[in-house]
Amino acid sequence: MHDSRLGLEGEFDEADLPLLVRRDGMAQWRGDAVRILDRRELPLSEVYVDCASTEDVARAIEEMVIQGAFSLSIAAGYGLALAAKNDLQQVERAAARLRKTRPTGLALDRMMTACINGAEAATAAGEPMCDAILSVVDRAAATLARQGWKTGQRAAELLPDGATILTHCFPDRAYVYMLMEAARAGKRFNVICSETRPYMQGAKLTSLCALQAGFDATVITDGMGGYLMRRGDIDAFVTAADRVCMDGTVCNKIGTYQYALAANAHDVPYYTLRQSGPDQESAGEADVAVEMRPGDALLTVGGERIAPPGAQGLYPAFDITPPNLVSRIICDRGIFEPAQIHTYASVTPFVADAIL
Amino acid sequence: MHDSRLGLEGEFDEADLPLLVRRDGMAQWRGDAVRILDRRELPLSEVYVDCASTEDVARAIEEMVIQGAFSLSIAAGYGLALAAKNDLQQVERAAARLRKTRPTGLALDRMMTACINGAEAATAAGEPMCDAILSVVDRAAATLARQGWKTGQRAAELLPDGATILTHCFPDRAYVYMLMEAARAGKRFNVICSETRPYMQGAKLTSLCALQAGFDATVITDGMGGYLMRRGDIDAFVTAADRVCMDGTVCNKIGTYQYALAANAHDVPYYTLRQSGPDQESAGEADVAVEMRPGDALLTVGGERIAPPGAQGLYPAFDITPPNLVSRIICDRGIFEPAQIHTYASVTPFVADAIL
Repeated sequence: MHDSRLGLEGEFDEADLPLLVRRDGMAQWRGDAVRILDRRELPLSEVYVDCASTEDVARAIEEMVIQGAFSLSIAAGYGLALAAKNDLQQVERAAARLRKTRPTGLALDRMMTACINGAEAATAAGEPMCDAILSVVDRAAATLARQGWKTGQRAAELLPDGATILTHCFPDRAYVYMLMEAARAGKRFNVICSETRPYMQGAKLTSLCALQAGFDATVITDGMGGYLMRRGDIDAFVTAADRVCMDGTVCNKIGTYQYALAANAHDVPYYTLRQSGPDQESAGEADVAVEMRPGDALLTVGGERIAPPGAQGLYPAFDITPPNLVSRIICDRGIFEPAQIHTYASVTPFVADAIL
Repeated sequence: MHDSRLGLEGEFDEADLPLLVRRDGMAQWRGDAVRILDRRELPLSEVYVDCASTEDVARAIEEMVIQGAFSLSIAAGYGLALAAKNDLQQVERAAARLRKTRPTGLALDRMMTACINGAEAATAAGEPMCDAILSVVDRAAATLARQGWKTGQRAAELLPDGATILTHCFPDRAYVYMLMEAARAGKRFNVICSETRPYMQGAKLTSLCALQAGFDATVITDGMGGYLMRRGDIDAFVTAADRVCMDGTVCNKIGTYQYALAANAHDVPYYTLRQSGPDQESAGEADVAVEMRPGDALLTVGGERIAPPGAQGLYPAFDITPPNLVSRIICDRGIFEPAQIHTYASVTPFVADAIL
């Protein structure tokens, strides 16, 4: 009943992919638990967390065991299945809990809605709701893989051979497929990974994927990208996006905006990878809730306090880049100018029935 | 013979100052050793390193036991005194070693030149060269204190009560005196400390000084300042400078340039504190050697490796901000537009015979 196919049949063997874009690099349904790769422990340890309840999954998402708007929505979908004991109210309560974990990306919210719809339909048909939810999550996961791959392929075609590409945070699977497709086409990129304090996704995850995809990976601090652009060392700035508004506004990991400003000042293109197009619910910046995380995360390093007693931390997890600083938004359906991203829905779908 | 007065007699009692701007918070002459406060261990431990030789002092500077162009020049001066056994060639060799430690700031180089001149004069007069060198260093230290205080006073007058001030790295004593003078005048500032990876001088040192001066201190990551400016949360961006060129170009800790770009985009003034005016030897950017430090420093956190095997780090320690992004350069002799900073030498000195 449970379909764990990758969604990329005919393109890549799952075993050939970097860990983080394999299904076991995100979340796996284990029947009585959801197994999540602990990204905080990467790259030096490969540790999996088994979550036996919806609450366990919610906490794992909150505590950054898994990250990335799309990847964590898969974990959340499976987390909802753990609560699917043929009681719709219980499922709705579980969905409400999961929705509260990370508010900025909308994929999680959509995953919850699609799963509840599936559970309702199953209930009406007298079928088990857990299977219905798993089916939704699996279909969403396969769709994400296909959309990510197509987006990555478009990005790989756009970027010239030999380009030095700065990225920030872990730009998820579209970026990884971009590297895989570039390698397949014989292109070489120099991958510069901005470390992305405080969770270090750039130093830990992006660099790992780049190396596993066969590229070099160079780590810099979050303060260095602008200077490298000024020196002429960066050919493109490429990130994912946690939210893309209909007017082309991009919300992504804190630090993106500064780099977008610097890119603009130095005529370096800023490409946003957004495999599934814009968020139709978000007209513009006013519709984006930027998540504030506990500031204490900035006062410690490697678990040890570094700031003096009395210091506080301020931790907006994302920032907002206005459309005028975005060169192109690269999607499964095509490459859009930010001012045209609202036309995404009118372009022929690459994958039918995408739910995230 | 050895004069350890602060240089601020009549303004502040040394005991009332934050640790990092006291003489024992920099470097102390101990007769047979130079005692240096280990800034890497702050703020949670107060550890002093006793350097018994010039080589020990050179390594302490290279390993960031002490930092800040002016502060480390004091340590270097005392380090040279350790080699002053009435053999001028030995002193010159020691100075050459110390000059190699940190190439970007010029205070160290000037300190070496002044000390050698002092040693030569002492030799000619048949006096002990060690005493002559100590006299030069002590005079330089007292001068630095006075210049820093005057610069801080000017900055405190310039900034409005209630201002939220973003800074990057540890902007040394002028910044601390700015806070002390603001407090004395009844002004309150909100101090935002950009943490400054990888050594975390902002999170560890600037926050400590702000708290010790009686202000709140809020730590952010190096990726956040631009977004806070965009939100309208920052009233001024204030840093020190490791080098100021005659055309108003500013060289400061890596990350400064990005913030200066963002400040410019949001009409936030960028004030550079440069207590001793521009570096007459540096006409412009082409004269600045930006120090490249070992990239491995970016691959570890708290002593533990976080990046995958095969990843490399790239670590320019400073960056360059062109004059058009600098609002004012605040010096002991006055507040200058960057295009006018070359006139510094023609303005009445605040301290006669400054050597750094």
